[in-house]
Amino acid sequence: MTSKHALHQPSNGRAILELIQYDRNHYNRFDDLSVTEIIHKINPHQVNWINVDGLEETHILEKLQEHFCLHTLLIEDVLNDQRPKAEEYEDYLFFTLKMLYRIDDKHIDYEQVSFVVGTNFLVSFQEKEGDLFEAFRDRIRLDQGKVRKQKTDYLLYRLLDIIVDNYYTVLDAIGEQIDDIEEKIQSGSSDSIFSEIQQIKKELIFLRKAVYPLRDALSKLVKGETSFVTDHTTRYFADVYDHIVHLIDSLDTYKDLTASLLDIHFNTQNNRMTEVMKVLAVISTIFIPLTFIVGVYGMNFEYMPELKTKWGYPLTWLVMIGIGGSMLLYFRKKKWF
Amino acid sequence: MTSKHALHQPSNGRAILELIQYDRNHYNRFDDLSVTEIIHKINPHQVNWINVDGLEETHILEKLQEHFCLHTLLIEDVLNDQRPKAEEYEDYLFFTLKMLYRIDDKHIDYEQVSFVVGTNFLVSFQEKEGDLFEAFRDRIRLDQGKVRKQKTDYLLYRLLDIIVDNYYTVLDAIGEQIDDIEEKIQSGSSDSIFSEIQQIKKELIFLRKAVYPLRDALSKLVKGETSFVTDHTTRYFADVYDHIVHLIDSLDTYKDLTASLLDIHFNTQNNRMTEVMKVLAVISTIFIPLTFIVGVYGMNFEYMPELKTKWGYPLTWLVMIGIGGSMLLYFRKKKWF
Amino acid sequence: MTSKHALHQPSNGRAILELIQYDRNHYNRFDDLSVTEIIHKINPHQVNWINVDGLEETHILEKLQEHFCLHTLLIEDVLNDQRPKAEEYEDYLFFTLKMLYRIDDKHIDYEQVSFVVGTNFLVSFQEKEGDLFEAFRDRIRLDQGKVRKQKTDYLLYRLLDIIVDNYYTVLDAIGEQIDDIEEKIQSGSSDSIFSEIQQIKKELIFLRKAVYPLRDALSKLVKGETSFVTDHTTRYFADVYDHIVHLIDSLDTYKDLTASLLDIHFNTQNNRMTEVMKVLAVISTIFIPLTFIVGVYGMNFEYMPELKTKWGYPLTWLVMIGIGGSMLLYFRKKKWF
Amino acid sequence: MTSKHALHQPSNGRAILELIQYDRNHYNRFDDLSVTEIIHKINPHQVNWINVDGLEETHILEKLQEHFCLHTLLIEDVLNDQRPKAEEYEDYLFFTLKMLYRIDDKHIDYEQVSFVVGTNFLVSFQEKEGDLFEAFRDRIRLDQGKVRKQKTDYLLYRLLDIIVDNYYTVLDAIGEQIDDIEEKIQSGSSDSIFSEIQQIKKELIFLRKAVYPLRDALSKLVKGETSFVTDHTTRYFADVYDHIVHLIDSLDTYKDLTASLLDIHFNTQNNRMTEVMKVLAVISTIFIPLTFIVGVYGMNFEYMPELKTKWGYPLTWLVMIGIGGSMLLYFRKKKWF
Amino acid sequence: MTSKHALHQPSNGRAILELIQYDRNHYNRFDDLSVTEIIHKINPHQVNWINVDGLEETHILEKLQEHFCLHTLLIEDVLNDQRPKAEEYEDYLFFTLKMLYRIDDKHIDYEQVSFVVGTNFLVSFQEKEGDLFEAFRDRIRLDQGKVRKQKTDYLLYRLLDIIVDNYYTVLDAIGEQIDDIEEKIQSGSSDSIFSEIQQIKKELIFLRKAVYPLRDALSKLVKGETSFVTDHTTRYFADVYDHIVHLIDSLDTYKDLTASLLDIHFNTQNNRMTEVMKVLAVISTIFIPLTFIVGVYGMNFEYMPELKTKWGYPLTWLVMIGIGGSMLLYFRKKKWF
Repeated sequence: MTSKHALHQPSNGRAILELIQYDRNHYNRFDDLSVTEIIHKINPHQVNWINVDGLEETHILEKLQEHFCLHTLLIEDVLNDQRPKAEEYEDYLFFTLKMLYRIDDKHIDYEQVSFVVGTNFLVSFQEKEGDLFEAFRDRIRLDQGKVRKQKTDYLLYRLLDIIVDNYYTVLDAIGEQIDDIEEKIQSGSSDSIFSEIQQIKKELIFLRKAVYPLRDALSKLVKGETSFVTDHTTRYFADVYDHIVHLIDSLDTYKDLTASLLDIHFNTQNNRMTEVMKVLAVISTIFIPLTFIVGVYGMNFEYMPELKTKWGYPLTWLVMIGIGGSMLLYFRKKKWF
Repeated sequence: MTSKHALHQPSNGRAILELIQYDRNHYNRFDDLSVTEIIHKINPHQVNWINVDGLEETHILEKLQEHFCLHTLLIEDVLNDQRPKAEEYEDYLFFTLKMLYRIDDKHIDYEQVSFVVGTNFLVSFQEKEGDLFEAFRDRIRLDQGKVRKQKTDYLLYRLLDIIVDNYYTVLDAIGEQIDDIEEKIQSGSSDSIFSEIQQIKKELIFLRKAVYPLRDALSKLVKGETSFVTDHTTRYFADVYDHIVHLIDSLDTYKDLTASLLDIHFNTQNNRMTEVMKVLAVISTIFIPLTFIVGVYGMNFEYMPELKTKWGYPLTWLVMIGIGGSMLLYFRKKKWF
Repeated sequence: MTSKHALHQPSNGRAILELIQYDRNHYNRFDDLSVTEIIHKINPHQVNWINVDGLEETHILEKLQEHFCLHTLLIEDVLNDQRPKAEEYEDYLFFTLKMLYRIDDKHIDYEQVSFVVGTNFLVSFQEKEGDLFEAFRDRIRLDQGKVRKQKTDYLLYRLLDIIVDNYYTVLDAIGEQIDDIEEKIQSGSSDSIFSEIQQIKKELIFLRKAVYPLRDALSKLVKGETSFVTDHTTRYFADVYDHIVHLIDSLDTYKDLTASLLDIHFNTQNNRMTEVMKVLAVISTIFIPLTFIVGVYGMNFEYMPELKTKWGYPLTWLVMIGIGGSMLLYFRKKKWF
Repeated sequence: MTSKHALHQPSNGRAILELIQYDRNHYNRFDDLSVTEIIHKINPHQVNWINVDGLEETHILEKLQEHFCLHTLLIEDVLNDQRPKAEEYEDYLFFTLKMLYRIDDKHIDYEQVSFVVGTNFLVSFQEKEGDLFEAFRDRIRLDQGKVRKQKTDYLLYRLLDIIVDNYYTVLDAIGEQIDDIEEKIQSGSSDSIFSEIQQIKKELIFLRKAVYPLRDALSKLVKGETSFVTDHTTRYFADVYDHIVHLIDSLDTYKDLTASLLDIHFNTQNNRMTEVMKVLAVISTIFIPLTFIVGVYGMNFEYMPELKTKWGYPLTWLVMIGIGGSMLLYFRKKKWF
Repeated sequence: MTSKHALHQPSNGRAILELIQYDRNHYNRFDDLSVTEIIHKINPHQVNWINVDGLEETHILEKLQEHFCLHTLLIEDVLNDQRPKAEEYEDYLFFTLKMLYRIDDKHIDYEQVSFVVGTNFLVSFQEKEGDLFEAFRDRIRLDQGKVRKQKTDYLLYRLLDIIVDNYYTVLDAIGEQIDDIEEKIQSGSSDSIFSEIQQIKKELIFLRKAVYPLRDALSKLVKGETSFVTDHTTRYFADVYDHIVHLIDSLDTYKDLTASLLDIHFNTQNNRMTEVMKVLAVISTIFIPLTFIVGVYGMNFEYMPELKTKWGYPLTWLVMIGIGGSMLLYFRKKKWF
């Protein structure tokens, strides 16, 4: 999973290209064009958003690299598992991060998304088909919100914001799982609790790896170190930055809560074991001496005077009840049960 | 609880508006006005404190947003669960933090409070009805303290100070709970101790999440990075900052004390278990060999010469008492009981 | 203990005032004057050290506040439990920290001491009567050391140095306690060890809370950020700063040592328990099968041919000794005892 | 292993020298020359890469030191185990780091590699024969990639990149081991799991020691603090820097995962033990009282009326089945088994 | 050990003085002079190294203090246990650190060494007689290395380098101890392992306290903040600095390895205990029901039909062997043994 040269799951073995062009007054979407056609269609006076789903067809990347003069290292970063980061090149800004999906309400799936942002174009590279942006594409088309009035930096903000918002969805689901487990523990069932907590811990570990580096990456955009973010849009990236810091706080909180849950689980386990051992201890401690006594009078010596007396048997019972009873009282006083 | 888009508990489904206007010589309070009436009443030569309880009625927020030119992101921050922070906009300063309530001496309830401070107005947004400011409103009315002689920045200081002071109340209550638990452990009762400690740990985790970010937020106001805090008032915010740092110290101390309590609890539990097991071990170890001996003479072999002798029975008793006694001595020497 | 509004123990319900005036050639000490008399006696050409023991009589504080123009927040800081800190005001420097007392060689008592230092005066506020400065007052009177040749900043240094030196006394006592406990563990006695270690941990937690913030407070004085410390005296404060850093190192070391002690204690406990359980296991495992065998020949079946043979009984013994002996050998080989 | 003066494993007791010379149009490789011959062959208008395998022959180092004016401390750093670092001298740049080998898919072997880079030469010192650069040497010869068009700084980048890329191979192998262990635990086998996890922990500890300092070393090259890295090549070193930070993230993740694995392992162990003890407890607790009852009626008192009655025996069975059965029900209800 | 006012072990109750004077062409060593004679002999055109062994004779310190104008605080620092540090005064540089000795291959002994370095003199203060510098004194006398050609700052570097090099010797010894313990654990012997690990942990704690502050102290010399270190010598101090950072890395690694060792030790202990308990559990669980059965037929009821039948006894054996055997199979299947 951390391999630099991880294999990417093919999206049917081929890449899917898409071009969305817009300004205040125009909007166009092209879905079935080849990479050369798309490059040909680019209009320098509009915002050109080229989306690439699937990174197997190397000739597409090569064409794009050639047209936008993309650095070899950038292409390598797009293709390989990368730490989320922002990097400024002479003619464009590069941003890469993880997009998260919640699968079957159980597992989290990761996909690396990379953005190259120039003055009038934004190229987004996704490893797999399907993304979180469909509703947003409609908003552009219908001219809802401010996006049609803004430039490529605002488009980048919107895409990052959508991805980061989805982190909350994933985190909330984990929060609910934690609440579920807490209830389960309190209601006494403990079958799969340990492995469920471990599962959450593991998800938090991977989430942390995806979210923590984003703070540094976004702070680059916020501090105005790059010329590709206008002063006006800086505040929007600052908002995403705040969300990331908030997410990190929540991740830390969840980490502490999960550790707490483990403590509670182990304590419950331990209490049950203690209870079992106490019952064993009480029963054993009471009956072992009594069994010895009855063993004594089971001996076959010829000269055992007690055996002849009439009151031997009931007296033995009395003695045994006395011993057992006083032990019970002693243990109860000691709060053993 | 950490959801960005958490649902707010409605305050009867509607928002409550309030306007307090004052300067050195005047004081007015309007309680039952609509948002348009309030905006109409604003007097630019006085301090205008508009308080909004309940954030469901969107048209109120829209009206305020329109009149004070509030940024869309600011309104989003007011509506959603946010990390405590201070943010400067061109015409106003934004501050958001958590207000804490202690409910039934048991649980802590959180409410997000946000402030927008301009040169002559302060708008406070609260999620629920009821707050900690009632006594302070009387002080303004009666012209106690310095508030009537000061501007909106001092008003902000006073409101923050009241909220932060209440953190101490909450923290002191936790301190008392910790002392209670310590006494309980020493007096031997251990029924609900574990879950009480877990409850405190959880409260400390959430308190930390509310208090830690405040340090950064306040340091912004103290370092004179914002023009909405005058030099004169800076010292007051520095005082709140010191309280926050003190609170963080105390939170860390309480965290350590709680961990210590858990150690003590587990040690007590463990000691009790050990005591139980030792009694079981001593009793078992003594009687198991004795029971074997009496079993031997309970055998029905025809040729067991010991059974015929007169001293067989008393001798067996002597041997058994000897074995049992020397074991007892050995265990006592080993300090097993 | 961390309460911002903690109640102070009264020093007989009243405050005790004291004025020490000196320069190179003169020395005066006034003990029984009222606050107005003291203020009247202040000589601007000498060093005036006013000491206040007990903070209940508010009119004294009010008089001093009025005469020295002390800020309201400063007086609040003097009255309430505060994080150690240094704060510069226009006409004076404010410094507050904890003074520690070792009571009965067992517990540590805290007292908050605050200093206000101007060009020709130093006011010291103490919560309780009695302090660590008595020997130093004699040194001033007898003109020992450099203090009579120096200004108020050197007086502040000397007072801080005395308080910090006393931290070492307290810490050394803890160091001896740790050594004692280590010896106790090695000599085998373990009765109160756990609670003694917990006591030390608690003291270290509170010491840390008193000492850590001092580093920041003193670094303010050392870095020349304040005009109330002359270049010449800066080196002296740097020395106190070094002591504080050394103290923090020692606190960390003691924290690690205490954790180590706990490990050793638990290991010793555990070893003892293991020993007990092993003896139980060996005895049980050997005798349980033997008891079964003697039980077999205690059965009352009419047709048990072994019972009739002459060698049945001694053979049974041989078999049992064989089984018991080989088990013993096996356990010894396995190093069970 | 951390010794400053560690002994190096001899590469057959002698050093192996190699010179590769190239520019855009020429390429030469000399394998069997003496150090004086190599120095004689150096062409100031080409890139001269001198590789030294084995550091025992001191006269070679002395000759190189003399010719390139290498600092005594630098030679000491080459010879002794060193923290990875970059150091700029007047006429050259010094870089030292660890090269990792995975041996038998089990253990990691370390070798220290040092580079001295001047304007037209690069000397690489390796402790042992054999390295990771063979494929790269072919690429130079065949003029693949950009290396023939670039200077010595790019050559350094390529060599570092190859070494760092190999870290990923090592780390991926550890990642697979972690996955293997997780599967093993789930499939129930637990024989060598603990020692395997400890082995991974140890490898991560040593990897961390090799990788963490590289971040500082590379940041020196990236921040343009050295004149031996051209602006153009800086971006390449930045890429290596990103890989190092990514590696550190992954090391942290693996550390957390390994800790998690240990938790799971211990929990599994503990569960099994608990299961064993519960069976023991249930069987003992049921049969101990029953054995007492049968012991009672094995006593030989003359007056035991129950023994005479016809229904004594079956009644005893009924009572015993009743006791045993109700205990079983109780334990089942308590979920003991 | 952390006492500020620790008592120093006397070196026969008196101090030993020594003066070494040298330049490029001359070398003199004076061993039996009084402090006045030594001061009289100081030659301002040579390097004068005055070494003081034992700090009890206060008049010596006073004479030196007077002649070199040493600050009172400096003398206090020399006399009392101090955090390693570098401090620049007007006419000299002060450096204090710990010198370590390995005693009996077992314990580490500490001695505080302080250096005062002026333009033509270096005074070294040692608490005890005997040091690590004897071989180095010979090198000066025989004019080996560069020291005779250099000034006092290089002399300081050489002395620090010797002390820091010896840290490696101490650390390597600890490394070997760790390897020894690991082998011991693997070979199964576990007698003193726990206390040996604790001993190493303690030594690492004290080493850390001696080494960590050195990083800050040396970085002062390296950053050129002091005029007593020439540009030329800075590189040498940088080398010592690198060694310190390397030492800190190694200390951290050893800390982790020691923690790992403890885990392994506890796991081994635990496994052995588990094995013991499992044998007990298997034997008990098998024989307890069997003992019950034989108890049943040991009862003396008159009407027990089974006792009369001829096959009663062998059938009982069959039943018991059946029960015991199936239990054994069950436990084996469950992998209990």
